[in-house]
Amino acid sequence: MNCIIAQSGGPTSVINASVYGLVKENERLKIYDNVYGGLNGIQGILEKKIINLSKMSSEQLEIFKNSPSSGLGSCRYKLKNYIENKEEYLKLIEILVSLDIKAFFYVGGNDSMDTTAKLSAFAKEKNIDIKFIGIPKTIDNDLMHTDHTPGFGSAAKFIATSILETYLDSKVYRDNGIFIIETMGRDTGWLAAAGALATLHGKPCADLVYLPEKTFNMVEFLEDVHRIYKEKNHVYIVASEGLRNEDGKFLAESSISTGHDNFGHSQLGGVGQYLKNLIIQSGITKRVKALELSVLQRCAMHCASKIDIEEAIMVGKFALEISIKDSSSGHMVAINRDCTELYSSSPFLIEAKKVANNIKHFPKEWINEKGNNITEEAINYLKPLIDYNYDLLPLYTSFAL
Amino acid sequence: MNCIIAQSGGPTSVINASVYGLVKENERLKIYDNVYGGLNGIQGILEKKIINLSKMSSEQLEIFKNSPSSGLGSCRYKLKNYIENKEEYLKLIEILVSLDIKAFFYVGGNDSMDTTAKLSAFAKEKNIDIKFIGIPKTIDNDLMHTDHTPGFGSAAKFIATSILETYLDSKVYRDNGIFIIETMGRDTGWLAAAGALATLHGKPCADLVYLPEKTFNMVEFLEDVHRIYKEKNHVYIVASEGLRNEDGKFLAESSISTGHDNFGHSQLGGVGQYLKNLIIQSGITKRVKALELSVLQRCAMHCASKIDIEEAIMVGKFALEISIKDSSSGHMVAINRDCTELYSSSPFLIEAKKVANNIKHFPKEWINEKGNNITEEAINYLKPLIDYNYDLLPLYTSFAL
Repeated sequence: MNCIIAQSGGPTSVINASVYGLVKENERLKIYDNVYGGLNGIQGILEKKIINLSKMSSEQLEIFKNSPSSGLGSCRYKLKNYIENKEEYLKLIEILVSLDIKAFFYVGGNDSMDTTAKLSAFAKEKNIDIKFIGIPKTIDNDLMHTDHTPGFGSAAKFIATSILETYLDSKVYRDNGIFIIETMGRDTGWLAAAGALATLHGKPCADLVYLPEKTFNMVEFLEDVHRIYKEKNHVYIVASEGLRNEDGKFLAESSISTGHDNFGHSQLGGVGQYLKNLIIQSGITKRVKALELSVLQRCAMHCASKIDIEEAIMVGKFALEISIKDSSSGHMVAINRDCTELYSSSPFLIEAKKVANNIKHFPKEWINEKGNNITEEAINYLKPLIDYNYDLLPLYTSFAL
Repeated sequence: MNCIIAQSGGPTSVINASVYGLVKENERLKIYDNVYGGLNGIQGILEKKIINLSKMSSEQLEIFKNSPSSGLGSCRYKLKNYIENKEEYLKLIEILVSLDIKAFFYVGGNDSMDTTAKLSAFAKEKNIDIKFIGIPKTIDNDLMHTDHTPGFGSAAKFIATSILETYLDSKVYRDNGIFIIETMGRDTGWLAAAGALATLHGKPCADLVYLPEKTFNMVEFLEDVHRIYKEKNHVYIVASEGLRNEDGKFLAESSISTGHDNFGHSQLGGVGQYLKNLIIQSGITKRVKALELSVLQRCAMHCASKIDIEEAIMVGKFALEISIKDSSSGHMVAINRDCTELYSSSPFLIEAKKVANNIKHFPKEWINEKGNNITEEAINYLKPLIDYNYDLLPLYTSFAL
């Protein structure tokens, strides 16, 4: 009796920690003879690209836990409905049955939960004795019904750390300009919001934080930037890549139409670049820098959040444990926040179909009235998810002998 | 009897560690009553923006040591010759004398060493009893007569770490594209070369590494990229921002002429963006990502090299110690590599004017014949400067049950 685990969608720093947790827990509980690993998600399993994770040494497993990015490979493959895609369903089941697999674990986001729900429903209908269980991961933190997702905390920690460090870097001269940092988050503002966690002596580094949940208002933006620049001779701005204007268009997209590279291709400059141009054009100052954190934020394992790693392991372990229960198929492991002050959490099950094809937006009530920062309540939610404790002391602000 | 220290030029992660070393050593040796800190370099000292570092608590000093970026503020101020600028020289000396300052320490790159040499020569000529001593810093590693510069090791470590992590991130799918990472280094290739330090199971992550010391050849570049892409379905490229074509023009500059943003401004896309466009245009693949590490590489203190921090402290301490010797004025503290295998180093003095207005290029003999990577000898030079020990294990390369 065996089980299999595979990864899907975009990588995170701690996605392998969930695989580690599941394999380790099986070593302890000995539920399955072997934990197999499917390479490149469903796509690879359909081609029988499968390895035996139970043959890994303890040392290999520890190293694997600390390796960022989907160590089993990933895919961007969305399973169609059974009616449209009968052959694939049957082929997959055939492969799983031939390996005596009783449980299939899929580590992924909402597309993967859609696959989990579909396969589970199919197995139940056809009386196939295989359970399909989802394990959450996404740096975007956009899955419904879970307090947060493994992967988010580490991305948030890297963002906050980089903001503190670049904030200091952007302030060393007498005449400092404007610094813009662009985070991921095409649909939701969770990652950009994490930028508000960077503080120096208790004060936030970022003056302005913009999330996609609030329509971007160019006039108000320039007013705010101008006011702060006049006051402090420095502005630090955090912007999500997903910012949209009143027409619902991505800001980054709106520059495509006229921006062309030297080969005549239109070029997507990114939100940071867009805002930089906007500020320069407005005449506030020409000293504007824009930095795109890009994929660094989803793979900077060297800066991972300890709690995030622990919870990624926890959801993997829990998935293994509950897979002996009949009722677990078609469910995803979710995280409940038991306590925020002395932070603690525990896993529970939620129907995968309730998570699939849904997006958990950053709550509008956690965005301030002006729409240019987040509230204290949001900070309290975010803070425990990163073990961010970075006490720094630049001296250039004081000058008295 | 007092001394003063100030910082100049671009920040690094460990520039404050040199100030820390100097203050700590003075606590031990009690050479000066007070170590003053000049804010924003010479520029701030001329405005009497000076603080007393000897009043900092031990705890504050430790935090200061761990703070990236010039904690005393910086300036981009190049002192003119005495003849053109008599008043400024006299004003500076007047301020220093009024504070009973006997030694002036300037932490910076080759411009700062030019300032150090000029002020020292002036003081000697006028029989003023103040010594001017340089302390090296620059992530670029481009100062002559020192084995390397404090600041470089930490930047190199962040670059190597980010390359390993983004390498893993860029390989998770079945069809992987081409990844380009752009490092700083407008004149020299030291930082890009550090990219070759990123290895996985002993093999380098980067397929191609391009330095400004070698003229960029577009045809050979595309040939190499095409060959490797066909072979591995993936190419990882490290490129210095300072790459130039046969006409001696920066690649990034050559795209200015036709690239315009949506405000009609010409836009400097960066080398990464330029190479990305080149590959797409060549038809090799459209799946190309370019990442610019930008200022992150000079302020990522959370990923600093231990040896770099230690050596930054060492040069600060040594500067303090030798400042009691008359002959020390007009010199910079340099680093000698005593042993590469069991790495050890020691400080020594070099005339500041020999460092000023000079650039130490990456040796041509350390670039391979094809000009697309560095040699083993270069790796051996670079390796000890970062305490990079990152053992990772992705599994997607193997598939056997």
